[in-house]
Amino acid sequence: MIAVLSGGVGGSRFLQGLVRVVPPEEVVAIVNTGDDEEFFGLYVSPDPDIVTYALGGIVDEERGWGVRGDTFRWLEAMRRFGHETWFQIGDRDLATHLYRTRRLREGATPSQVAGELAERLGVRARVLPMSDGRVRTVVETEAPRLPTGRGALPFQRYLVQRGARDRVLGLRFEGAGGARPAPGVLEALREAEFILIAPSDPLASIGPILALPGVREALASRRDRVAGVSPIVAGRSLRPPAAELLAGLGHEVSALGVARLYRDLARVFVLDREDAGLTPAVRELGLEPVMADTIMRDAAAKEALARATLEALG
Amino acid sequence: MIAVLSGGVGGSRFLQGLVRVVPPEEVVAIVNTGDDEEFFGLYVSPDPDIVTYALGGIVDEERGWGVRGDTFRWLEAMRRFGHETWFQIGDRDLATHLYRTRRLREGATPSQVAGELAERLGVRARVLPMSDGRVRTVVETEAPRLPTGRGALPFQRYLVQRGARDRVLGLRFEGAGGARPAPGVLEALREAEFILIAPSDPLASIGPILALPGVREALASRRDRVAGVSPIVAGRSLRPPAAELLAGLGHEVSALGVARLYRDLARVFVLDREDAGLTPAVRELGLEPVMADTIMRDAAAKEALARATLEALG
Repeated sequence: MIAVLSGGVGGSRFLQGLVRVVPPEEVVAIVNTGDDEEFFGLYVSPDPDIVTYALGGIVDEERGWGVRGDTFRWLEAMRRFGHETWFQIGDRDLATHLYRTRRLREGATPSQVAGELAERLGVRARVLPMSDGRVRTVVETEAPRLPTGRGALPFQRYLVQRGARDRVLGLRFEGAGGARPAPGVLEALREAEFILIAPSDPLASIGPILALPGVREALASRRDRVAGVSPIVAGRSLRPPAAELLAGLGHEVSALGVARLYRDLARVFVLDREDAGLTPAVRELGLEPVMADTIMRDAAAKEALARATLEALG
Repeated sequence: MIAVLSGGVGGSRFLQGLVRVVPPEEVVAIVNTGDDEEFFGLYVSPDPDIVTYALGGIVDEERGWGVRGDTFRWLEAMRRFGHETWFQIGDRDLATHLYRTRRLREGATPSQVAGELAERLGVRARVLPMSDGRVRTVVETEAPRLPTGRGALPFQRYLVQRGARDRVLGLRFEGAGGARPAPGVLEALREAEFILIAPSDPLASIGPILALPGVREALASRRDRVAGVSPIVAGRSLRPPAAELLAGLGHEVSALGVARLYRDLARVFVLDREDAGLTPAVRELGLEPVMADTIMRDAAAKEALARATLEALG
């Protein structure tokens, strides 16, 4: 069994590759829920949904999120009612959130609901939200005062509503210290043959998972079986806000900056061929650098990246 | 000011005609909410929505309900999750229910929400749900035993899910006796120059409104200013289940059967020219029969029916 720590878009693409390399049934995705948010009274869990859509074959591959070919009629109608509509939820996508919201009200846990959604979409890998507790990723910024406190923005507001344009002063995962990893998470980390940290935002996507009690320790204690993959290529992130967060919080915006964050947790570190020059510094951190093409342009590239990562560990 | 008791499709068409005859600001529609239902955790109020869509110019004129040109993508996605999807809610329509559900959770009343929706859709007439309390129209049938009790079907299940095919044994309006008419309803009935009973289902649509404390009395006391319009033409109803309910509950399935229901409440009774033969019997009931074309095929027909009804009173 292979456990994968994952955020949304980057992680889901990596997982798409992985399930072509190993039997999907042997993959457990442990997915960030710090970005979860309520919109219009609906509980939206963006990263687990992206992963489920991607593995279920219905994701909008171009955007990386949402359902392929989806429309936004309900949202257009909502705009007419004067509602905030900065968070783009498609008509088909909406069914997922209605389903989740209803099941949660009925008393189901987020991980039960994630399992049901995955099953309905024919996903054979296991998709585990990182916790059934509520963890809120909050970005402290220089944005004007908000109801959430001076410049403190819930993650989706920071990223989507304000386009990650505010200078970042801090990042916190509210509730993470008291939230238990979801049933199966620590077991997966204990029993996995390998643990992979997907090329997701190391701070905003992987950070909340690592902030849960026992997770960081679980990786550190099995460090020789862990590989991390850099989402930063040539000093840039493919999508915001990984670079913005690294910079704002005083990290180097490079694969090396990411490697430093993973040095105690992983033995192997996968970085892009473009960053070949960083391998000596990565090695100096005590990590085994592995070069690969990390930009997952198509199915073959996703598969190759997953294969290279596994081979480096194996 | 003109007060109109209305159900969904038939009533909304009548109201479309009326606002072409008198200034829309002078029309108060008092709309049945006994058919309200929760689907997927959303509070759906079919009749007030139909009226609002019709007066807002966005109704699907062909079907008589929902939003013109709407799609059903979210519902198709919901089907995939194994949910019941017999109640057709379109993508745009859905925004209305999400909006309402959210506002009700925030503590708004149904009549406040109806006012907000009408305003957003540019409706100048007043759309009043009959009550801010919960009234449930239940049809007692010969259907197999259900969780609601032996053959007792909430109205939408009877009409939409089961296609009004079960023999009707009874009809009740749960909660009506203890539900107060919404703010403005009794005032409108007291102060209206005329009160019109739209060509809606007399039992299932007008019945719940009349069952509210004070409404029947309000009409009876102003009977000389009240006109009822028959939804039954030549012994048939244009849409189910008016005929089915009349028959099941032992009434004559004809304009005369409807006239008997309204005899204590109205002075004028409008029936279709096809039913000319019934006028003596209607007159014998103490009602003034008025012949008109009651099948509202187009805008001109709607307007003509409203005009004929008002002229008979005036």
